[in-house]
Amino acid sequence: MIDTPSLVDQYCHGVLRTELGLGTFETHLAPSSALPAAGTTFFDTQTGFAVRRWCPPLLGLEPHCPPARYLARRRELGVVEAGRRLLRSSGITAYLVDTGLPGDLTGPAELAATGGAAAHEIVRLELLAQQVADTSGTVEAFLANLAEAVHGAAAGAVAFLSVAAVRGGLVAAPEPPWPGQVRGAAGRWLARRRAGGALDDPVLLRHLLWIAVGSGRPLQLYVGERDPSDLAGFASATGGLGTDLVLLHGYPHHRQAARLAAHHPHVYADLGPVVARTGARAAGVLAEFLELAPFGKLLFSSGARGLPELHVVAASIFRGALSRVLGEWVADGAWSRADAQRVAGMLAADNARRVYRLG
Amino acid sequence: MIDTPSLVDQYCHGVLRTELGLGTFETHLAPSSALPAAGTTFFDTQTGFAVRRWCPPLLGLEPHCPPARYLARRRELGVVEAGRRLLRSSGITAYLVDTGLPGDLTGPAELAATGGAAAHEIVRLELLAQQVADTSGTVEAFLANLAEAVHGAAAGAVAFLSVAAVRGGLVAAPEPPWPGQVRGAAGRWLARRRAGGALDDPVLLRHLLWIAVGSGRPLQLYVGERDPSDLAGFASATGGLGTDLVLLHGYPHHRQAARLAAHHPHVYADLGPVVARTGARAAGVLAEFLELAPFGKLLFSSGARGLPELHVVAASIFRGALSRVLGEWVADGAWSRADAQRVAGMLAADNARRVYRLG
Amino acid sequence: MIDTPSLVDQYCHGVLRTELGLGTFETHLAPSSALPAAGTTFFDTQTGFAVRRWCPPLLGLEPHCPPARYLARRRELGVVEAGRRLLRSSGITAYLVDTGLPGDLTGPAELAATGGAAAHEIVRLELLAQQVADTSGTVEAFLANLAEAVHGAAAGAVAFLSVAAVRGGLVAAPEPPWPGQVRGAAGRWLARRRAGGALDDPVLLRHLLWIAVGSGRPLQLYVGERDPSDLAGFASATGGLGTDLVLLHGYPHHRQAARLAAHHPHVYADLGPVVARTGARAAGVLAEFLELAPFGKLLFSSGARGLPELHVVAASIFRGALSRVLGEWVADGAWSRADAQRVAGMLAADNARRVYRLG
Repeated sequence: MIDTPSLVDQYCHGVLRTELGLGTFETHLAPSSALPAAGTTFFDTQTGFAVRRWCPPLLGLEPHCPPARYLARRRELGVVEAGRRLLRSSGITAYLVDTGLPGDLTGPAELAATGGAAAHEIVRLELLAQQVADTSGTVEAFLANLAEAVHGAAAGAVAFLSVAAVRGGLVAAPEPPWPGQVRGAAGRWLARRRAGGALDDPVLLRHLLWIAVGSGRPLQLYVGERDPSDLAGFASATGGLGTDLVLLHGYPHHRQAARLAAHHPHVYADLGPVVARTGARAAGVLAEFLELAPFGKLLFSSGARGLPELHVVAASIFRGALSRVLGEWVADGAWSRADAQRVAGMLAADNARRVYRLG
Repeated sequence: MIDTPSLVDQYCHGVLRTELGLGTFETHLAPSSALPAAGTTFFDTQTGFAVRRWCPPLLGLEPHCPPARYLARRRELGVVEAGRRLLRSSGITAYLVDTGLPGDLTGPAELAATGGAAAHEIVRLELLAQQVADTSGTVEAFLANLAEAVHGAAAGAVAFLSVAAVRGGLVAAPEPPWPGQVRGAAGRWLARRRAGGALDDPVLLRHLLWIAVGSGRPLQLYVGERDPSDLAGFASATGGLGTDLVLLHGYPHHRQAARLAAHHPHVYADLGPVVARTGARAAGVLAEFLELAPFGKLLFSSGARGLPELHVVAASIFRGALSRVLGEWVADGAWSRADAQRVAGMLAADNARRVYRLG
Repeated sequence: MIDTPSLVDQYCHGVLRTELGLGTFETHLAPSSALPAAGTTFFDTQTGFAVRRWCPPLLGLEPHCPPARYLARRRELGVVEAGRRLLRSSGITAYLVDTGLPGDLTGPAELAATGGAAAHEIVRLELLAQQVADTSGTVEAFLANLAEAVHGAAAGAVAFLSVAAVRGGLVAAPEPPWPGQVRGAAGRWLARRRAGGALDDPVLLRHLLWIAVGSGRPLQLYVGERDPSDLAGFASATGGLGTDLVLLHGYPHHRQAARLAAHHPHVYADLGPVVARTGARAAGVLAEFLELAPFGKLLFSSGARGLPELHVVAASIFRGALSRVLGEWVADGAWSRADAQRVAGMLAADNARRVYRLG
């Protein structure tokens, strides 16, 4: 058996503070804002089945018990106690938390306290820019405050994140924009936006990204369902600057993410899609990541949001998949047991500790 | 063991009525219109091996016997009796038949009688438009007759199918065209076409598709080798209208098809590519479908055309793959047996019965 | 067990003649010109682990011994003797050698002598064009000499190779360029290039490719990480001319390469990416190739460059993957043992012998 004693969750969100009914709970099993078809339920997904497998025993029930029974037990314990039991069973010892989502979610400190773990903040760049725009009177003030805000945030944050840059033009134009372009774009965006309006200008997004690259903090890029190969230009442009890039998501193009990580010393790939979403298939997806990626370039995460069940399930599935994949290779003689154990530790925690300098 | 007592084949064609020689039989094992390389044969494919595995025993021969021996036995029994024995062994209890292919193929009623099963017609929209064009004198008459023909066909058909819309511009322009555009396109197409000419105008294809969407019947879209993610725009545009979309083919982009089905309540994915074409590998491909797709969104089909062997092989491979994949997950404790059995029934028949309202 | 008695390596390079330190050895485990991240090593890759598994026993050490120990033993034996022991253990009986790489690599004759095998030369078209350009004074002389050089090379070479044509515009314009275009492009390229300058003009690349197609020798096309489906136009344009196309690389788009090989009688797919790079995962990748590709259309290669370890590892991994994948299908009853054995021979050597007329 391959042992993974502790996990660093390099990308997740907080959990909801309120009691949940069956319907609300179900919506959190699916991609954001998706609805089930009439006559179907999102409990009938890999995520739904994984929650039913792993979580009931942690609250004193049989695995695979009906959803309604699980939720009744969850309410009986209360959201705080249920969350505590779940998170403390996950084996996660450090959470890197994206605090940029709306909704009543626990922040890093509260997640840490509940889970008996460390927690660190990931700062979402677009949100930072919106906050700066809300409080800056002129283009010049906005641009000066933006740079200052990013560098200020770098002091407290463990990493930056951009969710909009990849779909916002980074692929076509990877280089930093010229100062004149930036001023023009800032003027136009500030003029048309209302308070709280989202940053959607491609030039400003790129400008923001390049400020973040200059900060030296690892930069997480949400790839979504795009082919990460499209980021080869940005990877080349940022090589040798001392800032690491971490590609989030990218399924079903995870083999391309692994390939990019093999070609660029500063590019890393998140294993998030392996877990929580593909359930019983996670070992197969993880194995695909391990084809071309150097083993020092892959990072566990849960990507969990809202439900502590998703942190638990991600951790359990990941450990099971890792143990199965590496265990088979050891059994075949393809890998030595010592190497397999070492690689398991790298993917689970050591790579993240090195990249994010977690000490 | 996972049990799949009966199958609904949600997309197939009829079978040939004539006796076949080795060469003609071989051409039906391969993609349409492909030829084998000199020195090779299409019997040396997964489909060829699967036919040799599953079909000889149904005609009283050893599995994997040489092709020439199998064809001799087939001729000895006669095409009618061989077809009867094969189809009645398939476990398929309902066929949804695309009647839009040329050639001397059995129609739904004859396929039903031969196979001892129910059969329903899928109407190919492009063919309907061609027939309407052949009998309409003016643009106005053509457009009025077209709408009437689609709504008339909806009364008798179980679904509509478009084979040309996806490659014909639906990706770039998912919305319905304006009436003025439609009239212009109809005028130009009717002026240049000869009797029987295929519908290849992108505006008319879209117009036709949107008439079909308005009929409420499920709409099957042939995706071919395109990335189904390209259909996200059409999926968004047709959401909430009460008409289901079923994506046909899409291998090797089946993970993207599954993903689209997870994001849109009215989008379904056909499992056709799993079967009949990947043979011994079907379990692996099926498992990939099951990563992100909600289990209520996947539909078995054979996609078989011409040879009853292809219906049989598709059904046998599908049952074997389903049993293996779900059986392993049950053995691992990842799924409960009851859930696995229920999901097997959904993929094999229940989802199709719900989507096509088969009663 | 499936037996693969001998292998034809249909695409590889020579090996280095000098003793290697740990650092230089490590760089050859990774994609060309890539560097490891700080704190990581390319020994921590599938290739690194595979070298440590297969090679130490061939030099009298334990499998998975530390890299430094292996390299010490390698130096102790000397580069010649180590190379001799390694290559003669590989089971490769014929090498097809791309001689177009820079560096002090052994040529076909020396590789053959070291490995106790046959060797044949693959001629890189771009290099031929550069040599002709270096020695031709006028556009007319260049074009005449180019055609002559290709036809002359065809007499001694086993195949042609283009590494630049696919990324150089073949996808957008598959047809041969017009003579006027060719003369114009040649004039411009000759005017701007310095001696030794690389051929990067898309019109000349296509012209060169079409001369090679006319020679009748198999033409290898380096696909890199592109989707081989993009070559459908060139495949259609070259169909029926009697010249075979062999697609090199294409991972992770190998399923598309297999599909193209199924649709075009003269298109073949290289199995190179299966081996040497994906290590313990090779069986999974090989199985994906075997989904749609007719079994007469897949060709083993090592793609090895610089280190004889890479030839050995490729051969060992390929044999292991083939034995596992086909062996499981035989155990399941999906394939007969005789068929599996025959297909193993086809992939390992017989297909290559037929395509390259190796006698």
